[in-house]
Amino acid sequence: MSQELRNRLFQQLDSLEIIDPHTHINALKPASETLADIMGYHYYTELAHAAGMPRARIEEPGIDPKEKVRRLVENLAPLDNTIQYSWLIEMAQAFFGFEHDRLTPENWEALYDTAARQMAQQDWERQVLAKSRLRGVFLTNDFDDPLQGFDTSVYIPCLRTDDLVFHLGKPEVRQRLEKATGVAVGDGGTLRQALGKLFDHFTQKGARACAISLPPDFAPTVPHGHAAADLAVGAVWRQGVDASAERRTELSHLVFWTLAEFCRDYRLPFDLMIGVNRAVYPGGVYQGQDLYDSRVSLIQYRELFNAFPEVTFPISVLASVTNQELASYAWIFPNVATNGHWWYSNTPTFIEHDAAARLEAVPRTKQIGYYSDMYKLEFALPKFAMYKRILAKILAERYVIDRGWSEERALALGTQVLRDNTERIFPGRK
Amino acid sequence: MSQELRNRLFQQLDSLEIIDPHTHINALKPASETLADIMGYHYYTELAHAAGMPRARIEEPGIDPKEKVRRLVENLAPLDNTIQYSWLIEMAQAFFGFEHDRLTPENWEALYDTAARQMAQQDWERQVLAKSRLRGVFLTNDFDDPLQGFDTSVYIPCLRTDDLVFHLGKPEVRQRLEKATGVAVGDGGTLRQALGKLFDHFTQKGARACAISLPPDFAPTVPHGHAAADLAVGAVWRQGVDASAERRTELSHLVFWTLAEFCRDYRLPFDLMIGVNRAVYPGGVYQGQDLYDSRVSLIQYRELFNAFPEVTFPISVLASVTNQELASYAWIFPNVATNGHWWYSNTPTFIEHDAAARLEAVPRTKQIGYYSDMYKLEFALPKFAMYKRILAKILAERYVIDRGWSEERALALGTQVLRDNTERIFPGRK
Amino acid sequence: MSQELRNRLFQQLDSLEIIDPHTHINALKPASETLADIMGYHYYTELAHAAGMPRARIEEPGIDPKEKVRRLVENLAPLDNTIQYSWLIEMAQAFFGFEHDRLTPENWEALYDTAARQMAQQDWERQVLAKSRLRGVFLTNDFDDPLQGFDTSVYIPCLRTDDLVFHLGKPEVRQRLEKATGVAVGDGGTLRQALGKLFDHFTQKGARACAISLPPDFAPTVPHGHAAADLAVGAVWRQGVDASAERRTELSHLVFWTLAEFCRDYRLPFDLMIGVNRAVYPGGVYQGQDLYDSRVSLIQYRELFNAFPEVTFPISVLASVTNQELASYAWIFPNVATNGHWWYSNTPTFIEHDAAARLEAVPRTKQIGYYSDMYKLEFALPKFAMYKRILAKILAERYVIDRGWSEERALALGTQVLRDNTERIFPGRK
Repeated sequence: MSQELRNRLFQQLDSLEIIDPHTHINALKPASETLADIMGYHYYTELAHAAGMPRARIEEPGIDPKEKVRRLVENLAPLDNTIQYSWLIEMAQAFFGFEHDRLTPENWEALYDTAARQMAQQDWERQVLAKSRLRGVFLTNDFDDPLQGFDTSVYIPCLRTDDLVFHLGKPEVRQRLEKATGVAVGDGGTLRQALGKLFDHFTQKGARACAISLPPDFAPTVPHGHAAADLAVGAVWRQGVDASAERRTELSHLVFWTLAEFCRDYRLPFDLMIGVNRAVYPGGVYQGQDLYDSRVSLIQYRELFNAFPEVTFPISVLASVTNQELASYAWIFPNVATNGHWWYSNTPTFIEHDAAARLEAVPRTKQIGYYSDMYKLEFALPKFAMYKRILAKILAERYVIDRGWSEERALALGTQVLRDNTERIFPGRK
Repeated sequence: MSQELRNRLFQQLDSLEIIDPHTHINALKPASETLADIMGYHYYTELAHAAGMPRARIEEPGIDPKEKVRRLVENLAPLDNTIQYSWLIEMAQAFFGFEHDRLTPENWEALYDTAARQMAQQDWERQVLAKSRLRGVFLTNDFDDPLQGFDTSVYIPCLRTDDLVFHLGKPEVRQRLEKATGVAVGDGGTLRQALGKLFDHFTQKGARACAISLPPDFAPTVPHGHAAADLAVGAVWRQGVDASAERRTELSHLVFWTLAEFCRDYRLPFDLMIGVNRAVYPGGVYQGQDLYDSRVSLIQYRELFNAFPEVTFPISVLASVTNQELASYAWIFPNVATNGHWWYSNTPTFIEHDAAARLEAVPRTKQIGYYSDMYKLEFALPKFAMYKRILAKILAERYVIDRGWSEERALALGTQVLRDNTERIFPGRK
Repeated sequence: MSQELRNRLFQQLDSLEIIDPHTHINALKPASETLADIMGYHYYTELAHAAGMPRARIEEPGIDPKEKVRRLVENLAPLDNTIQYSWLIEMAQAFFGFEHDRLTPENWEALYDTAARQMAQQDWERQVLAKSRLRGVFLTNDFDDPLQGFDTSVYIPCLRTDDLVFHLGKPEVRQRLEKATGVAVGDGGTLRQALGKLFDHFTQKGARACAISLPPDFAPTVPHGHAAADLAVGAVWRQGVDASAERRTELSHLVFWTLAEFCRDYRLPFDLMIGVNRAVYPGGVYQGQDLYDSRVSLIQYRELFNAFPEVTFPISVLASVTNQELASYAWIFPNVATNGHWWYSNTPTFIEHDAAARLEAVPRTKQIGYYSDMYKLEFALPKFAMYKRILAKILAERYVIDRGWSEERALALGTQVLRDNTERIFPGRK
């Protein structure tokens, strides 16, 4: 029976110890201190806001964590259908013995207090890692992160580069760059020198990826040469965001291309997260303002993929309508890999459709099944559980039943995309 | 067992008394008089035409209804696979005791005669409403509709505004506007005055929504001020369709934006039906000429959603590839709601994919599950039945089985999107 | 039970004798001579290359077929999840009694030798046709193919026109055209004369279709008249690829439109395969360099569909996101038919979604279910088997179970789209 088969496959996938290849964990404070850290996750605040809760109630300055949770709980009923809500309940059940299937004004306080007690334990972080069977998590580090004070074999550095590509117009970003690298940037050459220092620093600290999120209209092109580079750097360094759009775009493209060159030289995969428009809804809550235009194509990255055969590009797409292109590009380009189910595509219907399409057509070695994208450690458990249930469903229905595979063979495929490919694709420096 | 579970959920959803939140019913003649009213629905004529039946055979002027049905029946076999054909058979079975599963040259005439007899009964309209468990239906009223002669608590007025936004270039539309409002329009101010009169009239008559269908390239923008408004109105009022494209576009945007302002002031939701290109196939049958370009994005409505936080925008998209954007925008914007499954997306495979994606990620209070879009009352029954079967399937498979929900909880979610949200989102004036 | 129902339907569909309406078979050498002909298919070479095998290892000049197979087998493990790999195993099992479920360095050689022995049999081609229940296959013939030396009732000619529309700038293509037709082209009139000769030749030899693949940005338009035609032909005939982009585009559109006119005059369907970008990855293996931009719309063909009501356009789309448009256009335009599941959409998840959407909304007479696109005869068996399994699944789940159809009725629908419509839509000249 398909249901029992799914359960068996899930149980086995669920027993694997894994690395989470993309998170926003703060390595100095990886786990939650109260339920407010969990319920303050933008998925809950933005959904509560979208369902009618005023932003001012959610983001009142200086609000006590317990009061914040109380307010959110009062506004959760309209979201109890969502998969994000199910993550919350699964966390509460798995970590804190919560026995209800909904969080209500009647039952939240006991959960809050239990969670606070457990989270206060010295080894809470280790408990969460162990219960979630996490061997490591990739971070998302600002380019000027000192990368100190934590175990980089568990909390694996990753150089996030959005600021460098898109925000050098801001004086504080330029200052951060010069401070972090000790390089006084003024032209193409010194900019390259500064970027190189970042790669030195990150790879010395064990970084295993470079990453960036990109808007749907971004289409990187080969830089126009030294003179153009000097011109673009000069203009932005002098005029900041007042430099002409043309110069700023040229600088974006120049920095992006230079990052790809350093990824090649330092042997780092370059995670591309393609498709987000920032601040589409400025009235939204913190981190709940971004949306997208799904009219994007990987053809925009054609020159890049051709120019850097030595760089692996693990790619995430924001919209499911781009997933077929992703599967096709990974099927043709040796340096393109599929990477997880990102953000607005991280819900079961899209994951099922997208993961099945990839499994059928992309070499098994090039698929990174899932990452949690979490800000607090507790989220890996329910998010990966969601993925593992869907993966088990696909393996059961499309491999064991439809294609006559043995359970063992199906499980080996699942293991590879869930666990093994992370090590294979992001080996780090040995 | 999943099949029995689906059936149980369907039976319970099917017992609910509902309001249909979007139709093209003529309140003065809501039900059919003969089978020709049913089979004259564009779904049958356009499919028969697409399958080879000449338009002249279908639209012969003055043709007798019975002869029209006879001709169509002769051309129905090629469509008997379609879901639209299944609506026809389900109607024939439910309303007229038809016992076959296909309508053929051999069996149509008895059905025709039975239907004609029943439709001639005084209370046929009430019978259809009762059998379909319809408590009310939203209309699609021309802006100059007197809204008289019917019970507006059952046939709920809705101000349709395509003519105002897109066709003020036509002299007859301008004349209708001036006649309906008594305002001699000549500039921005008088145009606003005229539009305001329409909102007065409609809301006094119990209208609960304003609505419009929009082409894929429409991207509304904030008006440019009084002088520009006067210029655009002046040009179109003087030159009609011969006014420059620029002026006509400005007027479209001005009217659209003004409608949104009145929706805010009169507290009416503004239904946006996004994505249709009119008259793509001018050789097609009546209402069977429109198609679309699926390259459309809700990012085009970004300024609108931000500018009118007080207006609810129930949104329908024509193509399933836009559905993920719709779900995402409703998940972020408090004023965006998902609305039904429109036209070319109103077939089971798309409904299942699109509805599941919404249920998983959009607050349950913001989803209007379905509307029939019907022209004759008899269509609500089979169209809603199709939707309810799919909704039952999603609830059974994705909630009860995959997520361990109780049947009661799943049913409550189904009830909310099928019935309750219509009242919540379109409250009308109290 | 759904699984048994699917199997029963599959068995019956699998027993039908069919015509394959689109292949790249070389009629003078239709079947394979060694396993290298099968494993040299671009699906295997490009996937092996994408998984890391160097192109030079795959395409070493003069390499022995057996050595080529040996090398590929060593690199197949990373693809053993793909549906394309399953075709290989199914062929090996069905034709050569292979008893394993994977092809490995340990077991390949025995298969190679067995295959070579069987393929060397005089009647191997007939054996393959019989075992695959193929009554005929459509070819893809260059415009200057003499169409001699084979039985055109089994190997049915099809005029492929990519070279004419897109490559007349190349001197060798112009020479081939003049040589094949005996017409010295110099202006619009002589070009039309030459094209007409091709239609004479092909239809005399039993051609049943004209076909072309088109890039995503192609949008055919009505030619601008004789003077413009003379100008475009003159420029390209004098300057070749150095003619201005404008003239070359005009010539493309002129030739395309003229082909449609001849399709009308000679009563040939015009297969449009929409959406491919050629040579996106020039470093890829032979035939493994093309990809696409999924931002394409059938609205680009609006003028064409309106201008040629007498021409049937069987349409294939490269990306599943275009499938809904295809279904909608076929539901409205009498001259648009849906045609198979092309290339990057020829994998189970996309086929299931796309075929279901078509079956529900397009008249059953206008759907060509599947074609193999094969280069060697042995591929029809596993590719059609994949399609038939999915078709059986859709018919079982969406017709018999969801809509209460009898198995017989479902089977008749399957038979029509799998077999009968090919004869109906491509009747050939009688």
